Amino acid sequence: MTQLHLDVCVSPLLFPLYKAEGKLVVVIDILRATSTIATALHHGANAVIPVTDINECLSYAAVDVLCACEREGKIADGFSHGNSPLEYTPDVIKNKTLVLTTTNGTKCIQMSRAQQAAEIITGAFVNLQAVCTYIQDAKQDVLLFCSGWKDQFSLEDTLFAGAVCDALEAHFTINTDSAYAAMHLYRSVKNDLYTAVTHSSHYKRLAAHGVEQDIRYCCSLNQIDIVPFLTSNNTLISKKSYG
Amino acid sequence: MTQLHLDVCVSPLLFPLYKAEGKLVVVIDILRATSTIATALHHGANAVIPVTDINECLSYAAVDVLCACEREGKIADGFSHGNSPLEYTPDVIKNKTLVLTTTNGTKCIQMSRAQQAAEIITGAFVNLQAVCTYIQDAKQDVLLFCSGWKDQFSLEDTLFAGAVCDALEAHFTINTDSAYAAMHLYRSVKNDLYTAVTHSSHYKRLAAHGVEQDIRYCCSLNQIDIVPFLTSNNTLISKKSYG
Repeated sequence: MTQLHLDVCVSPLLFPLYKAEGKLVVVIDILRATSTIATALHHGANAVIPVTDINECLSYAAVDVLCACEREGKIADGFSHGNSPLEYTPDVIKNKTLVLTTTNGTKCIQMSRAQQAAEIITGAFVNLQAVCTYIQDAKQDVLLFCSGWKDQFSLEDTLFAGAVCDALEAHFTINTDSAYAAMHLYRSVKNDLYTAVTHSSHYKRLAAHGVEQDIRYCCSLNQIDIVPFLTSNNTLISKKSYG
Repeated sequence: MTQLHLDVCVSPLLFPLYKAEGKLVVVIDILRATSTIATALHHGANAVIPVTDINECLSYAAVDVLCACEREGKIADGFSHGNSPLEYTPDVIKNKTLVLTTTNGTKCIQMSRAQQAAEIITGAFVNLQAVCTYIQDAKQDVLLFCSGWKDQFSLEDTLFAGAVCDALEAHFTINTDSAYAAMHLYRSVKNDLYTAVTHSSHYKRLAAHGVEQDIRYCCSLNQIDIVPFLTSNNTLISKKSYG
């Protein structure tokens, strides 16, 4: 059996327990940051710069840079772009740089940097297979980091972590309680993932803002064959994981 | 639909997010504190006093008080009793008071007191039905508090929380991500609970200490028809939940 380990962290509050240093960390924020990041890069963005606060986001304002800010599930006051993957069509985003701050996902990217992860990528159902292929090829210990909602356990992020465990069980040692739980939870609902996600608190929060279409998109598998990869200067760029 | 809520906290680190004040908190430490507490009371202990540190435990030493201390899954040095439910047969425990400190479970009882929970009981598979009946009759919002292992997510504690959600779904509003996840995880493995628990890290830790029999016992349902209830002076006593 392989000696490489795959583990799952279900909340940012638990992240310090996981010793991310030297590992490949996959940041997960299905609704919607990591779905949006994958989509923007797939549709031709040069890069996505994830930042944690609004002022930092605004400091990037310049020609050909789109500043986007989501707070509480909505576009923040003073911004024209937010955290909907469907906003970032090719005509909006191609050859541009997106500077993005969101409630949960971008924070976890910065936490992973601070813990000196060896590599940081982002994962979502829309690029599940690409992420799995990337992880399998990376030959490193892997931590799947669920962003949650304001530190709370998140169903949709945990389901994605479970989907990765399910796909890679033959290639990694998966022997922790959280990884086992995520994998079996995913298997128990995978035949109707969308319905499972409609039970999440964040689905209810977003549906109240009228973004049902976003959620259907975020639950659709393998629309995108690239992996967002964080460079050493805090910029997410597109990597092909295969082909 | 009832307005009473049932929620699940999967780690002590997340407990501050749950606003336990005024709620009925069920502390869960399947392997093994809450299985042991239920067993000791069922076998005739007058009371179980849960304490957080070894010196406090030793301060109770007196005639007819048993001081028990578990650390790292084993009986701590200098103690003759630990955290195995099978230690506390009627001839050992009847009419005695057990003062118990364990790695995880007793700490969570004290955290619940500090947060001013309205009531604190403990739950385990060995008294699952009694706990469910008690909760249903209590007519309060309920928080199922998984002790975990040193703040980590614990499979067996989460499975028990899921079993309670599964049993009480018709009687409470269960609409959080963690409760949904725990319930569906439990349903996916309930037909072979013991095998699922053998995948937990704490099973592996304990099995290495030769306490396989303990674990089989801790996974057996409804051996005991009492509920351990914490009085205002920090003493767990036996309550009948029905009959």
